[in-house]
Amino acid sequence: MKAYVEQLGERAVQAAAELATMSSETKNKALGILADQLESRSGEVLAANKLDIAAGRKASLAEAMIDRLTMTKGRLDGLAQSVREVAALPDPVGRIGSLTRRPNGLLVGRMRIPLGVVAFIYESRPNVTIDGAVLCLKSGNAVILRGGKEALHTNLALAGLIDEALSAAGCPAGSVQVVNITDRAVVEHLLKLDRYLNLLIPRGGEGLIRYVAENARVPVLKHYKGVCHVYVDKDADMGQGLEIALNSKVQRPGVCNAAETLLVHAAVAERFLPEFIKRSKAVGLELRGCAQTRQFAPDYVKEATQDDWDEEYLALILAVKVVASYEEAVEHIRRHGSDHTEAIVTENYTTGLRFINEVQSSLVLINASTRFNDGGQLGLGAEIGISTTKLHAFGPMGLEHLTIEKHIAFGNGQIRE
Amino acid sequence: MKAYVEQLGERAVQAAAELATMSSETKNKALGILADQLESRSGEVLAANKLDIAAGRKASLAEAMIDRLTMTKGRLDGLAQSVREVAALPDPVGRIGSLTRRPNGLLVGRMRIPLGVVAFIYESRPNVTIDGAVLCLKSGNAVILRGGKEALHTNLALAGLIDEALSAAGCPAGSVQVVNITDRAVVEHLLKLDRYLNLLIPRGGEGLIRYVAENARVPVLKHYKGVCHVYVDKDADMGQGLEIALNSKVQRPGVCNAAETLLVHAAVAERFLPEFIKRSKAVGLELRGCAQTRQFAPDYVKEATQDDWDEEYLALILAVKVVASYEEAVEHIRRHGSDHTEAIVTENYTTGLRFINEVQSSLVLINASTRFNDGGQLGLGAEIGISTTKLHAFGPMGLEHLTIEKHIAFGNGQIRE
Repeated sequence: MKAYVEQLGERAVQAAAELATMSSETKNKALGILADQLESRSGEVLAANKLDIAAGRKASLAEAMIDRLTMTKGRLDGLAQSVREVAALPDPVGRIGSLTRRPNGLLVGRMRIPLGVVAFIYESRPNVTIDGAVLCLKSGNAVILRGGKEALHTNLALAGLIDEALSAAGCPAGSVQVVNITDRAVVEHLLKLDRYLNLLIPRGGEGLIRYVAENARVPVLKHYKGVCHVYVDKDADMGQGLEIALNSKVQRPGVCNAAETLLVHAAVAERFLPEFIKRSKAVGLELRGCAQTRQFAPDYVKEATQDDWDEEYLALILAVKVVASYEEAVEHIRRHGSDHTEAIVTENYTTGLRFINEVQSSLVLINASTRFNDGGQLGLGAEIGISTTKLHAFGPMGLEHLTIEKHIAFGNGQIRE
Repeated sequence: MKAYVEQLGERAVQAAAELATMSSETKNKALGILADQLESRSGEVLAANKLDIAAGRKASLAEAMIDRLTMTKGRLDGLAQSVREVAALPDPVGRIGSLTRRPNGLLVGRMRIPLGVVAFIYESRPNVTIDGAVLCLKSGNAVILRGGKEALHTNLALAGLIDEALSAAGCPAGSVQVVNITDRAVVEHLLKLDRYLNLLIPRGGEGLIRYVAENARVPVLKHYKGVCHVYVDKDADMGQGLEIALNSKVQRPGVCNAAETLLVHAAVAERFLPEFIKRSKAVGLELRGCAQTRQFAPDYVKEATQDDWDEEYLALILAVKVVASYEEAVEHIRRHGSDHTEAIVTENYTTGLRFINEVQSSLVLINASTRFNDGGQLGLGAEIGISTTKLHAFGPMGLEHLTIEKHIAFGNGQIRE
């Protein structure tokens, strides 16, 4: 098994050397062919996907898991569209921000280059196979993709299309390697493959991510949980507060940038909470509140326990707490937040500016929904997750985060005295 | 011991929360006081340093180690000067590159913030205590400094000056913590302190760095060895080739950006090598060459073994190899280099551009000495090492690499549809 994983690494390193200087034209050609094939040869992928779904049902997978696993013609067309969008993005590789002239005449600057070899370790969603392959290829990285065993047939069918597209465009064969062995030992060896891998990206549940983070010798970009907050300040516009708090939670409750806790300044609790509770009832949003929150609707609002403040519900449930001050709100966020996304609703200039400066999450918003923490919404293009680690990438990870800058210098004989 | 290290972490996190929004004025004030004290109270530091040196001699430390350990009035004045230079650098924290308006009117951008808590684990040189403290303070990070036991008295004397400067300027007490226990267990616990630490920076020999990299659960910025190359192309200016090759090796042979291997294109070997060997003799530079190199001076040039191509001599020794082509030179660098610094000497436009594009080291130069891979020389200001890991930082790590960008958004009620 170790030899197999080492071989993946060696092939990837060889491909990476070629990919690093490959023209955008060639890379985009491969992406274009892949997009076309995802549409025209959807039958093959859907047939393979049926095998995975049947096996999943036999193994009594949860319905949510089956849903994540399921490919449809519509989903494949959507994937093809996203591949074309990545092809249309500017190529980050080779970009030189600026060159400056040093006192000795040396012209110095930085040039963006691929990281080299990236590995993805992920669970049931087969679309990561396409996203990972496409973003790595565009950024000039070789990639090793290790998906969940539930999606193996689908992933291999997708791998077949990827291989053909790469080969038709003239990209090296080892550019994208989909692991076709489901043995868990593959993951263990990948985690230690620091001789070949420049970066490991785990995608999936908290358990997987924690396992990878704690055992990897290779650098890891982590996407942990999102315990996001909306804070309705004493100087909030009440209408905006209602819309932003509700949108942050209910527009799509099961995602990481959905709000999990609402904080309300005591001075506006009486004006804000009764209406908010009414609107929550109307959309079936379960509330778990502190004592002050519950007094407005003790029958509807459940009692929040200490654990609720740390919970990522990923469901139509929201924790609600009345705070005595702006400072208490920020302190609550510091103690219970996950550095993901925090929004304040306020019309007060100074309070808004303080929040932007004092809260150190990957996205901090004034008067807007937490749901905007997304590569597409922030204008970065496609993303590979939202990093909550303050290193290399913090927030949506896009193409740029699959690259790094090397330094370059143009001289005419400079030496050091 | 674990409780002690946890407490270091807790104090640091508390200080970091305050430091993150501390004004540049306050931080610079602390740096100014520290610089003054390094000059005016040098006696205390030198007295402590004498104890370390005496203990070192008793323990029969190597002379090079004693030298690294030794503080003099001159070295302290130099440190004071470097502290003032850091104070004079622009504060990276709070910088917003640009804001762009999304189609829905949301104004989005990125703001630079500190990483949070940084730990340094280092060996004998006590100047890292000042460098680490000063760069972290300037960039708004709390720092835990764990130096070598050989330098303990010196480090604690420096810590005293740091504490007084912080307190006089009004910075939180836990901003800079110098570990006063030499038990190795402290390091083991620091490596696992991912609840509190955002970054670990090992400084020292390859053994220490490898140990930290392989055992840390916290993200690590590594500064591995520098096996740097100078390649004299067939189209090189011979005069520049001589000066650059010699300067890259002999100007300061014991540092990571000194060249270790010289590659010479076969077409110019006869013109270049005899003169280069003559100049090497004159400065006492030992050469270890391939067969083709040795034919020009078989008595002077020793036979290079396979190991020589991977060696970081850090001494007046240089490996020399004749290559048949540009491609062979680049392939040699790919196989034996350490991604640190590579220079080409050529007057050929296309060859130079290929080298800049095809060699993926942290600094790639045309017609200049490898010795320029240094934060000061490249215009970045003070540095904390040269990263050879392609993540977060690649090349000289300056103040900017002790920060990360968070995303910020200014809205007026935006929600997602």
